[in-house]
Amino acid sequence: MVTDMKKMNFVLIGGDLRQVYLTRLLAEDGHTAAIFGAEKAETDGVQLLSDLSALENADCVLLPLPLFGNGELNMPLSEKKVTMSDILRRIKPSVPILGGKIPSSTADMAKLHGFTLIDYLEREELAVANAVPTAEGACALAMEELPITLSDAKTLVVGFGRCGEILAHRLAALGCDVTVSARKYSDFAWIEAYGYKHIPTSDIASYGGSFDVVFNTVPALVLDETALRSLRRDCLVIDLASKPGGVDFDTAAKLGVCVIWALSLPGKLSPLSSGRIIRDTVYNILDEIG
Amino acid sequence: MVTDMKKMNFVLIGGDLRQVYLTRLLAEDGHTAAIFGAEKAETDGVQLLSDLSALENADCVLLPLPLFGNGELNMPLSEKKVTMSDILRRIKPSVPILGGKIPSSTADMAKLHGFTLIDYLEREELAVANAVPTAEGACALAMEELPITLSDAKTLVVGFGRCGEILAHRLAALGCDVTVSARKYSDFAWIEAYGYKHIPTSDIASYGGSFDVVFNTVPALVLDETALRSLRRDCLVIDLASKPGGVDFDTAAKLGVCVIWALSLPGKLSPLSSGRIIRDTVYNILDEIG
Amino acid sequence: MVTDMKKMNFVLIGGDLRQVYLTRLLAEDGHTAAIFGAEKAETDGVQLLSDLSALENADCVLLPLPLFGNGELNMPLSEKKVTMSDILRRIKPSVPILGGKIPSSTADMAKLHGFTLIDYLEREELAVANAVPTAEGACALAMEELPITLSDAKTLVVGFGRCGEILAHRLAALGCDVTVSARKYSDFAWIEAYGYKHIPTSDIASYGGSFDVVFNTVPALVLDETALRSLRRDCLVIDLASKPGGVDFDTAAKLGVCVIWALSLPGKLSPLSSGRIIRDTVYNILDEIG
Amino acid sequence: MVTDMKKMNFVLIGGDLRQVYLTRLLAEDGHTAAIFGAEKAETDGVQLLSDLSALENADCVLLPLPLFGNGELNMPLSEKKVTMSDILRRIKPSVPILGGKIPSSTADMAKLHGFTLIDYLEREELAVANAVPTAEGACALAMEELPITLSDAKTLVVGFGRCGEILAHRLAALGCDVTVSARKYSDFAWIEAYGYKHIPTSDIASYGGSFDVVFNTVPALVLDETALRSLRRDCLVIDLASKPGGVDFDTAAKLGVCVIWALSLPGKLSPLSSGRIIRDTVYNILDEIG
Repeated sequence: MVTDMKKMNFVLIGGDLRQVYLTRLLAEDGHTAAIFGAEKAETDGVQLLSDLSALENADCVLLPLPLFGNGELNMPLSEKKVTMSDILRRIKPSVPILGGKIPSSTADMAKLHGFTLIDYLEREELAVANAVPTAEGACALAMEELPITLSDAKTLVVGFGRCGEILAHRLAALGCDVTVSARKYSDFAWIEAYGYKHIPTSDIASYGGSFDVVFNTVPALVLDETALRSLRRDCLVIDLASKPGGVDFDTAAKLGVCVIWALSLPGKLSPLSSGRIIRDTVYNILDEIG
Repeated sequence: MVTDMKKMNFVLIGGDLRQVYLTRLLAEDGHTAAIFGAEKAETDGVQLLSDLSALENADCVLLPLPLFGNGELNMPLSEKKVTMSDILRRIKPSVPILGGKIPSSTADMAKLHGFTLIDYLEREELAVANAVPTAEGACALAMEELPITLSDAKTLVVGFGRCGEILAHRLAALGCDVTVSARKYSDFAWIEAYGYKHIPTSDIASYGGSFDVVFNTVPALVLDETALRSLRRDCLVIDLASKPGGVDFDTAAKLGVCVIWALSLPGKLSPLSSGRIIRDTVYNILDEIG
Repeated sequence: MVTDMKKMNFVLIGGDLRQVYLTRLLAEDGHTAAIFGAEKAETDGVQLLSDLSALENADCVLLPLPLFGNGELNMPLSEKKVTMSDILRRIKPSVPILGGKIPSSTADMAKLHGFTLIDYLEREELAVANAVPTAEGACALAMEELPITLSDAKTLVVGFGRCGEILAHRLAALGCDVTVSARKYSDFAWIEAYGYKHIPTSDIASYGGSFDVVFNTVPALVLDETALRSLRRDCLVIDLASKPGGVDFDTAAKLGVCVIWALSLPGKLSPLSSGRIIRDTVYNILDEIG
Repeated sequence: MVTDMKKMNFVLIGGDLRQVYLTRLLAEDGHTAAIFGAEKAETDGVQLLSDLSALENADCVLLPLPLFGNGELNMPLSEKKVTMSDILRRIKPSVPILGGKIPSSTADMAKLHGFTLIDYLEREELAVANAVPTAEGACALAMEELPITLSDAKTLVVGFGRCGEILAHRLAALGCDVTVSARKYSDFAWIEAYGYKHIPTSDIASYGGSFDVVFNTVPALVLDETALRSLRRDCLVIDLASKPGGVDFDTAAKLGVCVIWALSLPGKLSPLSSGRIIRDTVYNILDEIG
């Protein structure tokens, strides 16, 4: 909580509902904040911009997460189009520009022109905080899709990174029987300390038949044909890993194993909480660059 | 777990997916079990009956929950129709007949003819066990409908009966800030012992503005106009109480308060777990009548 | 929380550290409060009385819990002695007199003289609230006495009343493997809903060999010779039941089973929390009698 | 769990109760295991050695944790004395020798003679696993020393390393109000994800007055005079950090702040669990060195 922060003029461009909520949250904190390129959202109490002229007086510019979609600046809530050049030519080089998933080519190009783009998706605290809505979304999905309650379910969480750790905690809290797969002895010690069972990720196939639902958090092919074959036919697989995912989707389809590839749960299920997470990270970044 | 139970011949009639799963579960325990009136369900490994003749050799007859819908025997998974007379005239009076939500007129009529209908919905253990899928379903609903995570949410649970107690436990486990409303000092002591906050149910209006979501479990008008007016406009109300519910729905609509009346969550979201709950209760009843 | 209560003049007589803390807590709430018969305690900020004259202006008199010890008014923190007559003859009959574990003969005698003694130990909310320090004390005992951590321990809680329920919750929270014994199907359903295992209290002997520690909460002989013989020699038994306890102590000694009869844990381990619990109950009683 | 491990001949020398339990645990797993220098312990079912001759056939030698005490090999459960030379001259250089807290000079000396000493205290999985008995012991201490229950207590955990993280989890599970102090934004995100409050470690003094108990896990002077002055006089400080600890002990004494420096809780309170932790780590080491 940066409570004694000086009040700033934020201009936001594009993005999904998270950015709209972010605009409102910044204003609630006493800042000036307005968004361009979100006219299709319900925007009670959010100041919409009709053009980019406000950029000239911006103290900080907030770009979408992810920055680009289909090669263009990501503005799913708008009919308009904007390019990086449209933005950069209106702002002073000293103004911090923050965005998510910024391609290195874009960052390089901006740097060449004297601008500094900061990628908030690379911040550890944002990654940790995002694991919470991801874990909740995964629980919600499993509750809906399984014919049993989670408290009746035997679950496997593949991977004990940020997302695996928070997810295992929430599942256990809901009464699940939780097994976590990992690779390192120290991860096994953590898993035991939290009261879950553990198996080696390389040996999922030996235990697969006992699970009602498998959550993957590892972005590498861990649920390969051997692992998939070991699962019961009524086992649900929820893949939370970003591209390329962790499941051999073709083989799963052939075997009749139901797989849900659940990407971007924070933005979809909890856009307001996600907006708060981005706000906190933006404040941290601004505090550091001072 | 009644592990040394003698093997029986169960005949099931109608009902929803819970009864289909119940048929399978009984068979998995080594009993003979078959269902009439569920031909529209996917019934892998479940024995379907094409007529009622199996009733003549039944050791126990299991009727739906609820027994009747729109005045007829409740068979949502079938095009067929069956009456209580069709059933009773085929079975011996000594055979136990179990169903859910049996009208007293039906029980009386059966008794007159020498039959004993037992209502498993009146069993305390079934009511307690059903609170688990209800609580999970309520969590899943809130996760989907709210723009924030439950771990970010301030929640009010109205009532500390079976459903309120289990729901509060699950919400707290997910990281919610949980307040429970109740009437009795001893309930307040329980609520504190579990670490939740408490307010008097009669005084919800004094605290209403601080909640992101309100779950009602009391089947009486507790969320009246005064209480509803105290809520924030973006507060979600989930009513879990059976008819007549606990919300003044008309006033809520006028005030623009979003209310979801979530009935029958166990059957809808967790039919297999619900089937297990009915099975356990059936075994308990049979054990007691002996 | 009775926040708008009128300020009163409380006089306390005797009792242990709980009553001393109670005196302080009442004063902190803005009441006048002083105690007679606690001169051996450290009493920072607590007003001590040197005689009983203050009783004449008391609005409420608070007697110890338990009222009597060894046939005399219970004053372990004093060299002085006081009788019920000493007290009653100084107060007006309309003044409420509250104490704990009041023998019916004493209550009858007082009634004969126009006084009303109210036993706060009979209040359900006090019994529930007291289960919390009892459960914590039981955990602390087990942590100290066992050579293993509770997170490593297989535990049996005998009985699912107030104390059993709270204890099972705390043990599970600490990572124990928790089994609860009970008698009723509905208790089994609660136990499952909270995620513990269950066994019938009548059948402890069939499972006894698997536990590292057994907590008894039932004040009847449930841990008889058969049950005790089933336990491993290194199993610890902690009996939380009030007299006559729930363990065949003689047989346990003969078998070499280590039993700790842990009575009055709230007063011993958490006198300040216990004082708060009594204060809340006193307020509730005063609120009800108006 | 290394279940298919080949059976070995373990010789243990000295150490406290943990090593005695470790000897028993190795034998229970089917290995040959005997201990020299523990004759003062109760050693039911543990094979004691009367001299060091068994070293000649050892497949693995297990030395104490810590290796030395007061400059001598650490054998608190024996009247005998042994030197490293006594040991090394009896074993083959190829035999793995494992001990805890091995001074680098000792390791160097051994290496010079062709022996490899492995320090199991440097293993991450042992450090993580040891945090569990440490956290439990800290809870037990607080339960005993505070006049309130933990569920009534406002607690501060200083530091969010292994020990701080597990301790915060256990305290929250017991119903505490938990605040954790840390330095990094990402730690703050973890702390929030688990539902605790957070403050900067550098700013403890601003919040000190609100805590009933402070647990320090940081081995650096974090509870300095300023921080100590901010605490209430009835606040308990439990220092879990190894030497030099994290508290200005002299100032605490002057201010009248009660500080307990609780070192080596695992060995003292949970020697059997600690023995299991060492066993698991020994197996991991042997598995890795092949």
